Amino acid sequence: MRAAIMRNKRLVVDDVPVPTPGPGEVLAKTLACGICGSDLHALKYAEKLVEGARRSGGAFVMDLQRDIVMGHEFCVEIVDFGPNTQKHFKAGQRACAMPVLIRPTGVETVGYSNDNPGGYGELMRLTEGLLLEVPNGLSTERAALTEPMAVGYHAVEKARLQKGDVPLVIGCGPVGLSVISALKLTGQHPIVAADFSPRRRELAQKMGADVVTDPKQRSPFESWREMAVYSDPKSAPPLPPWMPGPARRPQVVFECVGVPGVIHSIMASSAPAARVVVVGVCMQQDSFEPMFGINKELNIQFVLGYSATEFADTLRNLAEGKINGDPLITGKVGVEGVAQAFEDLGSPEHHAKILVEPWHS
Amino acid sequence: MRAAIMRNKRLVVDDVPVPTPGPGEVLAKTLACGICGSDLHALKYAEKLVEGARRSGGAFVMDLQRDIVMGHEFCVEIVDFGPNTQKHFKAGQRACAMPVLIRPTGVETVGYSNDNPGGYGELMRLTEGLLLEVPNGLSTERAALTEPMAVGYHAVEKARLQKGDVPLVIGCGPVGLSVISALKLTGQHPIVAADFSPRRRELAQKMGADVVTDPKQRSPFESWREMAVYSDPKSAPPLPPWMPGPARRPQVVFECVGVPGVIHSIMASSAPAARVVVVGVCMQQDSFEPMFGINKELNIQFVLGYSATEFADTLRNLAEGKINGDPLITGKVGVEGVAQAFEDLGSPEHHAKILVEPWHS
Repeated sequence: MRAAIMRNKRLVVDDVPVPTPGPGEVLAKTLACGICGSDLHALKYAEKLVEGARRSGGAFVMDLQRDIVMGHEFCVEIVDFGPNTQKHFKAGQRACAMPVLIRPTGVETVGYSNDNPGGYGELMRLTEGLLLEVPNGLSTERAALTEPMAVGYHAVEKARLQKGDVPLVIGCGPVGLSVISALKLTGQHPIVAADFSPRRRELAQKMGADVVTDPKQRSPFESWREMAVYSDPKSAPPLPPWMPGPARRPQVVFECVGVPGVIHSIMASSAPAARVVVVGVCMQQDSFEPMFGINKELNIQFVLGYSATEFADTLRNLAEGKINGDPLITGKVGVEGVAQAFEDLGSPEHHAKILVEPWHS
Repeated sequence: MRAAIMRNKRLVVDDVPVPTPGPGEVLAKTLACGICGSDLHALKYAEKLVEGARRSGGAFVMDLQRDIVMGHEFCVEIVDFGPNTQKHFKAGQRACAMPVLIRPTGVETVGYSNDNPGGYGELMRLTEGLLLEVPNGLSTERAALTEPMAVGYHAVEKARLQKGDVPLVIGCGPVGLSVISALKLTGQHPIVAADFSPRRRELAQKMGADVVTDPKQRSPFESWREMAVYSDPKSAPPLPPWMPGPARRPQVVFECVGVPGVIHSIMASSAPAARVVVVGVCMQQDSFEPMFGINKELNIQFVLGYSATEFADTLRNLAEGKINGDPLITGKVGVEGVAQAFEDLGSPEHHAKILVEPWHS
């Protein structure tokens, strides 16, 4: 089958063997698969990634000497069934799934694996028990957004927002936009967001942010301070005597950038007692000053992925139109276009999410 | 009055002016004042401390060119009253207080201030409204432990322990011992702790730790894993398929060391979904790898000080014998002995808490 392959740290198009579905597995045709920022990172920092995953218990344990077909944000069509399958699905039906296989030997990833090709190839094997039917009327493109939108949904679940909390989203790439869409779903307002890119600020507004700041013009924390004042001063709790007023509602910052220094700068600028949810994936060593955390009694919650329930909720929310991911989709390519798409995604001005459609040229 | 003074980054004994109690303030005689690790740090890294406090909104904003009388863990005797005082207390009564003054111009610290001498001097001024009477029968020495014991009490409150959580205390200096005493108060067992020093391990056991590990012999996290297995396997939640058994109870790690690298090493060794409570005060820049936090979905809660209620609770708990701080007190000195006591506290084998009694020689 044709696939865009990570080989010797470069993306090439070549034929690779069609995967064989094992017991309890199906063979599926990739209809569409989003390109994730983690894939860009995996290509650029492959060795570091594998070494870091090995030490920190991460998923990216691969042999870089061998081919890897990435792609973990997919919508597929069922093609064939391996042994011991229930066949609740029929061939030709569309499905989404979390990018993992549950095998007798343990869990394996799809898309960061030498043996389980991901959605940048024409065919995949998937665990039958994890398949979720794509509801009628939900387009393949939208269904392919389930995985990236589940990331924001999970982050907002882990944030355990309380009534009155005012969120601040730092970074409006696909991760930040996913968080904004999940915040919109909670009905929590105002949603404050920030990004250096005009295009991404525009997308943030389309996804549901109420105020979007350019950090070059104004500190996102200043915008937040302006928006977080209690509209009814009588409902504000009394301030401690040393704190200049007016009182602000509680702050929840979503870190959606994932490069060294961002966590520190959030710790330095955040409000007292802020909760910081780290959704961005910084794979390098990072530094910070604990005193900022201590003096403000900050709470930092790291998050990863989503639960099976959150993944299914997200697909349903997309189908019911409660989450609108359309603004994210800024391009489509075939396997031949994947390498160029990786290049293009480097600039925030042109693209947010590019879908790979391996059967189209 | 006589005082041990921080002057030109050294401790000297000299006469300083008796502080004048302002409106709503009392003059009080220092009966006993504990030496805190933060004071040792303040002496050693004075400039860094002041610079860091300025940037991070901390309390340590002092002019190092002028005298500073430190000491913020005190039990006092009321001597005299400033203007506009309520005089609920009588001269001669013993009291404790949080080391702050509430003044019309804002809050000021006692003990990290050029103008408000702390307990390493014979006399202090204190805000009348913050005074707490020392109950009859509670010795002055024990009452002077209110402040350091409130630190652990607050940390455990912020940890929001749930039934079944198994705490692990890293570092058994005064902060770690205070956390252990507060954990004992919750009835949560087992309490696992770790310290390199045999003397501190002994103190940890006296304060209520069930298992205390020498990290040179065995990883504290290994000890924790052994202790955290469900005694009734039927009450254990099902493990995800990729996690080797047996299931463990939830982990709450208390970081009570406060030097660079400790937060990282806890993040690297902790259990999935662990909550880390940072009680140690690391005043330097520190580094960490976010991937450990991400892959395990860790939560880090920084804590500082205590509330007025927690402070009062701690004094009452000491009076009622619910908290026993006696093992902590390992020495007493007059003002002339403060400099040597600072030296002695550098070694964990000899001392935990030394009380300064400025009126004794």
